[in-house]
Amino acid sequence: MNFESNNTTMKHNFGAGPCILPQEVFQQAANAVLDFNGLSILEVSHRHKDFVAVMDEAIDLVKKALNVPEGYSVAFLQGGASLGFTIVALNMMRDKKKAGYINTGTWASGAIKEAKKVGIDVDVFASSEDKNFTYIPKGYTIPTDVDYIHFTSNNTIYGTQFKEFPKTDLPLVCDMSSDIFSKEINVADFDIIYAGAQKNLGPAGATLYIVKDEILGKSSSTFMPTYLDLKQHVEKESMLNTPPVFSVYVAMLNLRNLLANGGVKAMEQRNNEKAALLYKEIDENPAFKGAVEVEDRSNMNVTFLLTDEDRTAEFDAMWKEAGIVGLPGHRSVGGYRASIYNALPIESVQVLVDVMRTFNQH
Amino acid sequence: MNFESNNTTMKHNFGAGPCILPQEVFQQAANAVLDFNGLSILEVSHRHKDFVAVMDEAIDLVKKALNVPEGYSVAFLQGGASLGFTIVALNMMRDKKKAGYINTGTWASGAIKEAKKVGIDVDVFASSEDKNFTYIPKGYTIPTDVDYIHFTSNNTIYGTQFKEFPKTDLPLVCDMSSDIFSKEINVADFDIIYAGAQKNLGPAGATLYIVKDEILGKSSSTFMPTYLDLKQHVEKESMLNTPPVFSVYVAMLNLRNLLANGGVKAMEQRNNEKAALLYKEIDENPAFKGAVEVEDRSNMNVTFLLTDEDRTAEFDAMWKEAGIVGLPGHRSVGGYRASIYNALPIESVQVLVDVMRTFNQH
Repeated sequence: MNFESNNTTMKHNFGAGPCILPQEVFQQAANAVLDFNGLSILEVSHRHKDFVAVMDEAIDLVKKALNVPEGYSVAFLQGGASLGFTIVALNMMRDKKKAGYINTGTWASGAIKEAKKVGIDVDVFASSEDKNFTYIPKGYTIPTDVDYIHFTSNNTIYGTQFKEFPKTDLPLVCDMSSDIFSKEINVADFDIIYAGAQKNLGPAGATLYIVKDEILGKSSSTFMPTYLDLKQHVEKESMLNTPPVFSVYVAMLNLRNLLANGGVKAMEQRNNEKAALLYKEIDENPAFKGAVEVEDRSNMNVTFLLTDEDRTAEFDAMWKEAGIVGLPGHRSVGGYRASIYNALPIESVQVLVDVMRTFNQH
Repeated sequence: MNFESNNTTMKHNFGAGPCILPQEVFQQAANAVLDFNGLSILEVSHRHKDFVAVMDEAIDLVKKALNVPEGYSVAFLQGGASLGFTIVALNMMRDKKKAGYINTGTWASGAIKEAKKVGIDVDVFASSEDKNFTYIPKGYTIPTDVDYIHFTSNNTIYGTQFKEFPKTDLPLVCDMSSDIFSKEINVADFDIIYAGAQKNLGPAGATLYIVKDEILGKSSSTFMPTYLDLKQHVEKESMLNTPPVFSVYVAMLNLRNLLANGGVKAMEQRNNEKAALLYKEIDENPAFKGAVEVEDRSNMNVTFLLTDEDRTAEFDAMWKEAGIVGLPGHRSVGGYRASIYNALPIESVQVLVDVMRTFNQH
């Protein structure tokens, strides 16, 4: 069965997450809610072979999309990166009970807070807090007397992104919630990559972990609830308990779509083009200015400000009129944030650029 | 937009969970995947007023459906009851660091295991392990020197159910995953009720907590990650981090459907009728026998066995031919399990009963 949406107004969804996914994925997901091999995907047992096949395929597609090497496992959990903060700290804790964290904003700060809460002595060896997280720290010295290093690859709220990852021989952990699958990465550089699904992977409700097998089961924490132990999830192939069936199913659909459209490499190219188009306008249009250091600009979340804040209402009316949604900056920083995740078409970016040009000519 | 499923074979889904929901809910959920106020429900920000309204309504409908009294809060989390085992133990831990648990099977045992893992001295003051959990313990003495009492109201795997809840002045905690919303309860008797959504509430991916406000923030645990602290979720109105948007949305639809059809009181009546129809057949049909004590039989999960196990293949072929799915017992106990949750129509039960009668006449 196929059917078409009756949306009469084309919306351009620049929301920061949960965010746009490919329209075909929405169609396929809606179809499966009505008919997944004769049942609704919402009423299928997670132990049914048809769903086990979905889970297996989702895990396999993650491995394919990111060229996950041998010796790594992929698992889908729940709780978002927020529970992930606790999970990675517990699973990476070793005898030193000390870890090095880079603080690049709200989510990095959350990771630091939760690591401390489980008893880790956190060494924040690099931070951009002095300039309200408008840049990515560089030239830092990575500590050596720690169990692991943690950073946040893309900072959704501020619009900064690591262009080069920290280089270290220590175990490296990264919260990639908001830029995973947007560009090629070398998984072998990491011990744990984790990511809430609701940007480039799928709808909210699933959290992805890519874990080096050799780190499993080696925590020094005396506290390890079963659900927080990655070893349990890996061994049970993400079926330790009832997984978020529909979220995993839609993530699987989205990964199929990604791979059918050239995979992460082609996506990176398109994302670069979208970001270049928008940043060019921000730099050339006198009515706007970027919010962060040019070299650290995110290709996922483009933050910008009006040069004349008194024209805010005028600009807001214009982009809303154009069918744009989700453009206001995070409530903690203000301004504007155009999230241009994988599924946002360049045509939507062009609509925004056109609005910005018209606005400048008023 | 509305559309009809093209299912040509009517399925009777007796699966134990994730399980059947009302067909109208599947239709409405599919519609929202395509069009929820102009976007897909899968791409709507959880901070958007339209989703905040969904969350507020879901919480409100839980309160209406169960007559939740003043002084209680409702929250939606992730992680299922399995993470709930840890959460309730952490949140109810007081100075004694001791709790009384009733062991009525796999999930109750899981709750005991996780309580121990967070440092609780567990007193299993009642258990039906001696007879492979085929009955609900009675005549037990509830300990008084503990922080709280925990039990599991319905045992999905074995097919037993508490008909009377433990009476105590101590804080009472219940895992109601598999029978919440199936019958009237007195919420004021409990300090925490928690439940994975995927039986009578909605699709997998959300976990419901109904919490007495006065217990919040009083844990004696030195270990309390933010995500595991119910106080944080209640204060943030289930928006501590990105909630499982779609699961909460469908739960809201399902609760609307429940209340539009007479609420929990009417549902209890229908559930009693369905259970009576099926248990009557089990008792009267010489080809079958019940698997648990008659007085402790679950109205949600009806477990039964063939009197002649050699006829298993014959019976299996017959119910499959009739469009029945999900009937095999849990892999740990065998036999059959007909889960007759709220959304399973009595017509489906009649189909099963007819198959059982025909089978006996062969």
